[in-house]
Amino acid sequence: MATDNPSFVLRAVEDVVYEQRPVPEIRENEVLVAVKKTGTYLISSSLIFLVHYLVHGRIGDFVVKEPMVLGHESAGVVSKVGSNVKTLKVGDRVAMEPGATCRNCDACKAGRYNLCTDIVFAATPPYDGTLGRFYRLPADLAYPLPDNVTLEDGAMMEPLAVGVHSVSNLGGFRASQSIAVFGCGPVGLLCMAVAKAIGASRIIAVDIVPARLEFAKAYAATDVYLPPKFEEGEARIDYSRRNANLMKETLGIEERGSKAIDLVIDASGAEVSIQTGFYIVKSGGTFVQVGMGNPHVTLDLGQLMTKELNYKGSFRYGPGDYPLAISFVAHGKIDLKPLVTHRYKFEDAVAAFKATRTGKSEDGKGVIKAIISGPDAED
Amino acid sequence: MATDNPSFVLRAVEDVVYEQRPVPEIRENEVLVAVKKTGTYLISSSLIFLVHYLVHGRIGDFVVKEPMVLGHESAGVVSKVGSNVKTLKVGDRVAMEPGATCRNCDACKAGRYNLCTDIVFAATPPYDGTLGRFYRLPADLAYPLPDNVTLEDGAMMEPLAVGVHSVSNLGGFRASQSIAVFGCGPVGLLCMAVAKAIGASRIIAVDIVPARLEFAKAYAATDVYLPPKFEEGEARIDYSRRNANLMKETLGIEERGSKAIDLVIDASGAEVSIQTGFYIVKSGGTFVQVGMGNPHVTLDLGQLMTKELNYKGSFRYGPGDYPLAISFVAHGKIDLKPLVTHRYKFEDAVAAFKATRTGKSEDGKGVIKAIISGPDAED
Amino acid sequence: MATDNPSFVLRAVEDVVYEQRPVPEIRENEVLVAVKKTGTYLISSSLIFLVHYLVHGRIGDFVVKEPMVLGHESAGVVSKVGSNVKTLKVGDRVAMEPGATCRNCDACKAGRYNLCTDIVFAATPPYDGTLGRFYRLPADLAYPLPDNVTLEDGAMMEPLAVGVHSVSNLGGFRASQSIAVFGCGPVGLLCMAVAKAIGASRIIAVDIVPARLEFAKAYAATDVYLPPKFEEGEARIDYSRRNANLMKETLGIEERGSKAIDLVIDASGAEVSIQTGFYIVKSGGTFVQVGMGNPHVTLDLGQLMTKELNYKGSFRYGPGDYPLAISFVAHGKIDLKPLVTHRYKFEDAVAAFKATRTGKSEDGKGVIKAIISGPDAED
Amino acid sequence: MATDNPSFVLRAVEDVVYEQRPVPEIRENEVLVAVKKTGTYLISSSLIFLVHYLVHGRIGDFVVKEPMVLGHESAGVVSKVGSNVKTLKVGDRVAMEPGATCRNCDACKAGRYNLCTDIVFAATPPYDGTLGRFYRLPADLAYPLPDNVTLEDGAMMEPLAVGVHSVSNLGGFRASQSIAVFGCGPVGLLCMAVAKAIGASRIIAVDIVPARLEFAKAYAATDVYLPPKFEEGEARIDYSRRNANLMKETLGIEERGSKAIDLVIDASGAEVSIQTGFYIVKSGGTFVQVGMGNPHVTLDLGQLMTKELNYKGSFRYGPGDYPLAISFVAHGKIDLKPLVTHRYKFEDAVAAFKATRTGKSEDGKGVIKAIISGPDAED
Repeated sequence: MATDNPSFVLRAVEDVVYEQRPVPEIRENEVLVAVKKTGTYLISSSLIFLVHYLVHGRIGDFVVKEPMVLGHESAGVVSKVGSNVKTLKVGDRVAMEPGATCRNCDACKAGRYNLCTDIVFAATPPYDGTLGRFYRLPADLAYPLPDNVTLEDGAMMEPLAVGVHSVSNLGGFRASQSIAVFGCGPVGLLCMAVAKAIGASRIIAVDIVPARLEFAKAYAATDVYLPPKFEEGEARIDYSRRNANLMKETLGIEERGSKAIDLVIDASGAEVSIQTGFYIVKSGGTFVQVGMGNPHVTLDLGQLMTKELNYKGSFRYGPGDYPLAISFVAHGKIDLKPLVTHRYKFEDAVAAFKATRTGKSEDGKGVIKAIISGPDAED
Repeated sequence: MATDNPSFVLRAVEDVVYEQRPVPEIRENEVLVAVKKTGTYLISSSLIFLVHYLVHGRIGDFVVKEPMVLGHESAGVVSKVGSNVKTLKVGDRVAMEPGATCRNCDACKAGRYNLCTDIVFAATPPYDGTLGRFYRLPADLAYPLPDNVTLEDGAMMEPLAVGVHSVSNLGGFRASQSIAVFGCGPVGLLCMAVAKAIGASRIIAVDIVPARLEFAKAYAATDVYLPPKFEEGEARIDYSRRNANLMKETLGIEERGSKAIDLVIDASGAEVSIQTGFYIVKSGGTFVQVGMGNPHVTLDLGQLMTKELNYKGSFRYGPGDYPLAISFVAHGKIDLKPLVTHRYKFEDAVAAFKATRTGKSEDGKGVIKAIISGPDAED
Repeated sequence: MATDNPSFVLRAVEDVVYEQRPVPEIRENEVLVAVKKTGTYLISSSLIFLVHYLVHGRIGDFVVKEPMVLGHESAGVVSKVGSNVKTLKVGDRVAMEPGATCRNCDACKAGRYNLCTDIVFAATPPYDGTLGRFYRLPADLAYPLPDNVTLEDGAMMEPLAVGVHSVSNLGGFRASQSIAVFGCGPVGLLCMAVAKAIGASRIIAVDIVPARLEFAKAYAATDVYLPPKFEEGEARIDYSRRNANLMKETLGIEERGSKAIDLVIDASGAEVSIQTGFYIVKSGGTFVQVGMGNPHVTLDLGQLMTKELNYKGSFRYGPGDYPLAISFVAHGKIDLKPLVTHRYKFEDAVAAFKATRTGKSEDGKGVIKAIISGPDAED
Repeated sequence: MATDNPSFVLRAVEDVVYEQRPVPEIRENEVLVAVKKTGTYLISSSLIFLVHYLVHGRIGDFVVKEPMVLGHESAGVVSKVGSNVKTLKVGDRVAMEPGATCRNCDACKAGRYNLCTDIVFAATPPYDGTLGRFYRLPADLAYPLPDNVTLEDGAMMEPLAVGVHSVSNLGGFRASQSIAVFGCGPVGLLCMAVAKAIGASRIIAVDIVPARLEFAKAYAATDVYLPPKFEEGEARIDYSRRNANLMKETLGIEERGSKAIDLVIDASGAEVSIQTGFYIVKSGGTFVQVGMGNPHVTLDLGQLMTKELNYKGSFRYGPGDYPLAISFVAHGKIDLKPLVTHRYKFEDAVAAFKATRTGKSEDGKGVIKAIISGPDAED
């Protein structure tokens, strides 16, 4: 086993470096994992976070105060197990759930551990992330990967778990129901993938970028919708109502019955998407908010009330979400490979981050998901 | 049985008259009820509706196109029963649920009949209301009143059912939980009454009128909170956050544990109330929207997401709400009498409406609930 | 339109005749359907009912007192529509839900109409069934069949709705879960089909007839299990525990984790099946009872308690079950054709009933499902 | 702080002794509690366990293999806190939840920690119980008692939590519903107390001992029912059906509507009680099994199916049950004092155990609950 721990560290905005960090000591219930594959998506988010922080003083409750190792969408190989660990052994390939919770608070005990305030979440200040040679975590958060699931797939389990949590757990989505997903970024696409795995009868993808809609259609959506342009001087809420009416007409959406949309997921965070979603979701329907943009959003509560909507916020993932994500991939119901558009070596992590942030790599190819190999990864 | 049907009819804004209407013919599953007591609350709402309509062309989906009998919060005495009615007999005292649904659509069959689009709802255009001598309705919507429940109580079951629906049914409120109710009008007060009947450990009333808080405290609240004034130039969302922090501090509210607020009800419809509610409700909590003001409200979705809130719209009432409302009153868990501040004869309905609209009667006494007796009521 | 209504009538045990019945008059909300295809499964059940009745005086709460038209699993073509019917027109191909409920009782309004006591259920005494030229029913119970769903498929929607109700609605079965189904008759097979449509990761079929297991494996099961023989003098509960241990060992079933059985369905009604199911279902699991044999069954409540099982009875089907059944077939997730092993003309209904009762036709071919064509069916 | 740990130890059937045990070392998340009050109820159960074990080889999955300290219904005073404990300090009065779970398994994480297989449960072999001077446990399982809750009350929280779990959590019991409780021992009485605290409209107590019914009536029941004698040669199931019919008639119980029984709790474990419960519970109702007798019980599944019952096993208690139990007592909704009929000094634990087992003390007074003081208790 290697005895050093080179890590990819964020020091300030656009200031990332490789540093040696000590190899973590594990406790009796923990394992040490040699990190092999890490997705970039939330790295760029973290950076955006930091920019917000430095400009605005703080963002939400998350503040980066000192240099921090990036990365939290990772898979790897177990290289050491704690004395009490019975479920894993050295050499096991695992996906890593990046939030270690306190297990003692009301939220943890009631089955909503994602609401634990004492969570140690990788790459969320002040906790270091997974982009090093080694990462330690409680053994129950390292999920063995079946043989037909690759380490790259494993690194994608984190955003997929977000989709599982939003669509299946919070959305309560069932076979034969209809869903509309606003936003065709990685999380939106994975929400569609989950809906497809569950057996959706209709999956409508909405985005303002035609190429993203094309990809969504090829990947999981049954229908796509490109919103119209704003008219000059048009208020956002007026635009959204117009957009919703057009969408209903174009796609034959009704408020009730078999042509109604049972579940809306907003994975865009855009105000007009959320507003439009309120207008198109069925009477008695559910709306799950998983995308975050400007948090201050104006909604039409008339829709909420007369349709008795259930509008839910989605935060990370909880009990059963990782296992279900892995199961979907293992049983061939979700194919993660088309989403990995770019691959980088550990030493090229800066390029991976830049491509993810700009949305395309140097050769102009659009990025959905970029994966950075760990220092020891063979491929 | 009387053979005429004098009715209180809205013809245009502030243009109400008494007119004779035909005594309704009942069908085999219906009963004819001699209306004895009717609450005024939603009458003024209907008028406001109409004003909106005449000024703005329409309001929501409800439009008054021709003269309509007012009234939908009523109780009376059965004066005729249809040939198939087995559960009621002439002379039974009943509270009347004012929405007769189609019973055939998906919503009706799935236990959410308040979402039925073919509902015939009293005093909602184009359907006549209850403010006449007689009203006909399906027998299962006429709920017999136990001996210890008065006809005036019976007329109050409609707004109480709104409270039951919001707090118990949608809010899932349980014994020993904590609730905050924004808005101390009749619906807000009845939400508090329901929370008390269920066994709340804490009921916080919020209003901007000190006298209303006083009443709430005497009636059902354990704590009251008077929001501070706006500061000059303060953005609403900033005010709301400041208000929430002050409220938390003043009342010892926390985001988790036994000092957290399990359920927030907004019965005010005011944007700052709703915003404040988002900030004070507990992590993982529920927020039910029952009050309607300007429907366009700006919310902080950061709260929705990081606390995984469940934000639900409440619309009228559904299966089991009327029975539970009656049961609470019959078992002495809710006392409706303190809410009835004004009583009017049938021929003084205009005065009742005016008092309700202005919030006080000619002698300056504040109105919570005004009850209009039917043409035949003895008292 | 034909003006007579030849019908297949049960008069006494094994005494069935063709009789002319009047063509039903329809009410404003009803349609008249020309019956084209009818499944036989419950016909034999009805006869068994009657035998029980004549021997034992009564069976359960169902008693045949006078001649009754048989049949309740049917599909046909709309031949007349009531004056208020807007959703159907003459010529529409429909599956018929055979229970017309009162729509006024608490059960109907609360979304559990299968518990309505005033239900008019086809071929349940004293109500006539569907095996005639015409059947009338409320329009909302006649579900239009998509073009790719045949009338024979339509006749199978009734037992499929039983499977949907048991597995999806009561069992709450979700994608990637595991299920064990005891009994490989039509209902058991359809429960497996529903589990497969939902995306089960494992479907274990249990039966004592190897040929039925073979069929189940080819149709929907991922695993099959043939219980061992009784040992001489072995108590049933001891046998069941032994059987369960063997089943666990053979199939690698555990009480927790990914190898646990989330849901057990008993579609056999056999005591040892039910007992075995209690032993193999996972801790915290659900068990749905849909098969009925001798109702007096001895259970090991130690399993119920220490595993906190949820043991639910299933009765017919409720809101949404027919639509989901049809949707599964229309989307190709369930193929009903392999289950139809025998087809009979209307005038050969006696032979259909005999084959169903004996489990094979005259040529020795095993019956899963026999379909009787209506008097007017072309094919 | 005392440095020894005298403990009450079960060595074999009816062979209990006082022995010195080492004072437990606490870990960083644990507290050491000086035990002040302990209920006897489950001590006698443990002994019965052991008798079963010695006679039958084993009972269920619980086997006593070596001497074990008894006691698991206890309250005391914190005498030492671990280095990471922030919620408690020395001197705090606490009720102790006696099951320390693994916090890592699926059950623990999904909010059903009572189904954890690695639970360390006080006085369940091989784990020592609370009847010593000191007991150590994780800090989150030591619940601070409000000032108006005594240590004796605190010792009663364990059986009360069983009632909370059965009635509120599993039974989903709501204000204004009706309940029938079979068995008026401590758990049955506490289930009634919980139903009363929640606001039951009707609480029917059933027992075969008139004095116990009298107590139940005075304590929490609104109605009591004494079953008739068996007739000679009467089969149990026939007796139960007769008993149910008599009970329905006597108490005016119906299967539907406001006179129906929403929830049945069996706290007796007696076959005829359970059978009777199936017959009297409402259509669509819930039945929770909390009492355990002979586990092999014959049920009428016709009831389970045609009424679509939900029959649930109850095992210990889970998230939120202890807090709700304490809250009910603190808010005066449950009075535990009438249940404590006997009090013993630590050195008289044998007498306490004998009285509990025989059901009365030497002076002939019936025992509901006997409390043993700890070695250091002042009173």
